[in-house]
Amino acid sequence: MSIVVVGSVVLDSIRSPHGSSNDALGGSAIYFAGAAAAYTSVKLVGVVGHDFPEEGNRFLAERGIDTEGLTTLPGRTFRYEAEYGKNLNDRKTISTCLNVFEQFHPELPESYRQAEVVFLGNIDPALQLEVLDQVRNPSLVAADTMNYWIEGARPDLEKMLKRIDTLMINDSEVLELTGETNLIAAAHATLDMGPTCVVIKKGEHGALLNREGEIFVTPAYPVEVVKDPTGAGDAFAGGFLGHLARTGTFDRKSYREAMLHGTAVASFVVEEFGPAPLSGLTTADTEKRYSQLVNMSTI
Amino acid sequence: MSIVVVGSVVLDSIRSPHGSSNDALGGSAIYFAGAAAAYTSVKLVGVVGHDFPEEGNRFLAERGIDTEGLTTLPGRTFRYEAEYGKNLNDRKTISTCLNVFEQFHPELPESYRQAEVVFLGNIDPALQLEVLDQVRNPSLVAADTMNYWIEGARPDLEKMLKRIDTLMINDSEVLELTGETNLIAAAHATLDMGPTCVVIKKGEHGALLNREGEIFVTPAYPVEVVKDPTGAGDAFAGGFLGHLARTGTFDRKSYREAMLHGTAVASFVVEEFGPAPLSGLTTADTEKRYSQLVNMSTI
Repeated sequence: MSIVVVGSVVLDSIRSPHGSSNDALGGSAIYFAGAAAAYTSVKLVGVVGHDFPEEGNRFLAERGIDTEGLTTLPGRTFRYEAEYGKNLNDRKTISTCLNVFEQFHPELPESYRQAEVVFLGNIDPALQLEVLDQVRNPSLVAADTMNYWIEGARPDLEKMLKRIDTLMINDSEVLELTGETNLIAAAHATLDMGPTCVVIKKGEHGALLNREGEIFVTPAYPVEVVKDPTGAGDAFAGGFLGHLARTGTFDRKSYREAMLHGTAVASFVVEEFGPAPLSGLTTADTEKRYSQLVNMSTI
Repeated sequence: MSIVVVGSVVLDSIRSPHGSSNDALGGSAIYFAGAAAAYTSVKLVGVVGHDFPEEGNRFLAERGIDTEGLTTLPGRTFRYEAEYGKNLNDRKTISTCLNVFEQFHPELPESYRQAEVVFLGNIDPALQLEVLDQVRNPSLVAADTMNYWIEGARPDLEKMLKRIDTLMINDSEVLELTGETNLIAAAHATLDMGPTCVVIKKGEHGALLNREGEIFVTPAYPVEVVKDPTGAGDAFAGGFLGHLARTGTFDRKSYREAMLHGTAVASFVVEEFGPAPLSGLTTADTEKRYSQLVNMSTI
């Protein structure tokens, strides 16, 4: 099965204790698509400005990503600037310039509308709903969100949650979404809001899946030097849904395998600045770390 | 194999968002011994004052713990008072009154000196070294420590680390011990200091084992309401070493199983105030959560 992803395409300027990047390719759609392309074919929906660099087009072409749904508008591409502190868990946003993204309304090309697997990247839930109105009969819909929408767009967010199968969300965000103080309680409370599955991403502490009330946990892949965590969550989602789309089965075992594939792919991303590690990422690369993760968590 | 444990016996007064306790039985030796007793026979070394309550003696007797090494001195028992914040990860110490513990020098009865498995609870590394001078030829020595000793007793701590097999330590403490900012790097750096294994306890995020350079990770048991995390780390150590002592083999597989047993036992402790959940804890109880943990982390 192929995947349709809608999300942001951004030029990121990131500083971390291990270096920095300037106007580097980024955004949820880029990290997701770059990761998922190691598993299956990917169709991207997004918007860029006239200044979108050739490097970006090359990345998308090399990963074999269908860009019929990537619109170019007059104006500048979305810019994002942030800084990580010493422990790399806390990101401080310095500036967010939406630019052409401000006018973005996802328009799915006809060839995208039969999509069987859909990923709604972390954008306004109103736009996520617009996408859902355009796809015909998807087998699996997953979405990401963040505190900004939890606080500022709750009604649309709640509508969106009722129409998806799997929510992918950070640990701090799921606590805010559900009003719980314990992740297990939050994982259960999320399913009362609509989805049948929730994946809680915990950074260096791995990720937790609640699928129909049953918990599964995967550790993070043991990376000794995390240079830039930007995009790790989207790459996780790409590996996760990439594996599910590749197998075409959405059962207990596939979901558990998908958790380890998400973890494996995300581990490559944090080792360098930007999505460069995804450029040449092959199935052999992901399978190797997948096996190491199985070994790390199996007696 | 039986286990000798040396550690503190304390009367704890704890407040958490879920209630409070006053002069309740506590201390590293109590939690460790109460947990390990579900697996094997335990000999305790410690000190109490004349005010040690009958409830404490009853707990130890019910768990079948050998208290020949538990000395009573004139004066009051060690008192500890602390408060947990809303998320139960941060503990604020309100007061620490060592009382009789200030004069404590562990004296192992003759019957303890052949101990095959030894656990050095979180006390002054100088006292931990005194214990090691009294045991004849243990097969497995594990120790716990904390930031207070890392900052204030580094030379003795370093000597101790060279004489043990397994260090059990919290996540924040292992970063402080090794000067690393990444847990995987810290897990590797710890082995350069002496032990062949390190277990890093991460609270709600589970625990990480580095055994001879190979990483194994276990999630925390999914507890929805954590009432009082006090003693969870010591109970973890009790289940961990209890399982190893019970099997009598210290290979890769036993260590991995031990990580899940430690996790299972600790999960009972956090559900109530004080060591009460350990009172009637049976092998059947621990095996049930052990199996659930295997199920949670195996594809």
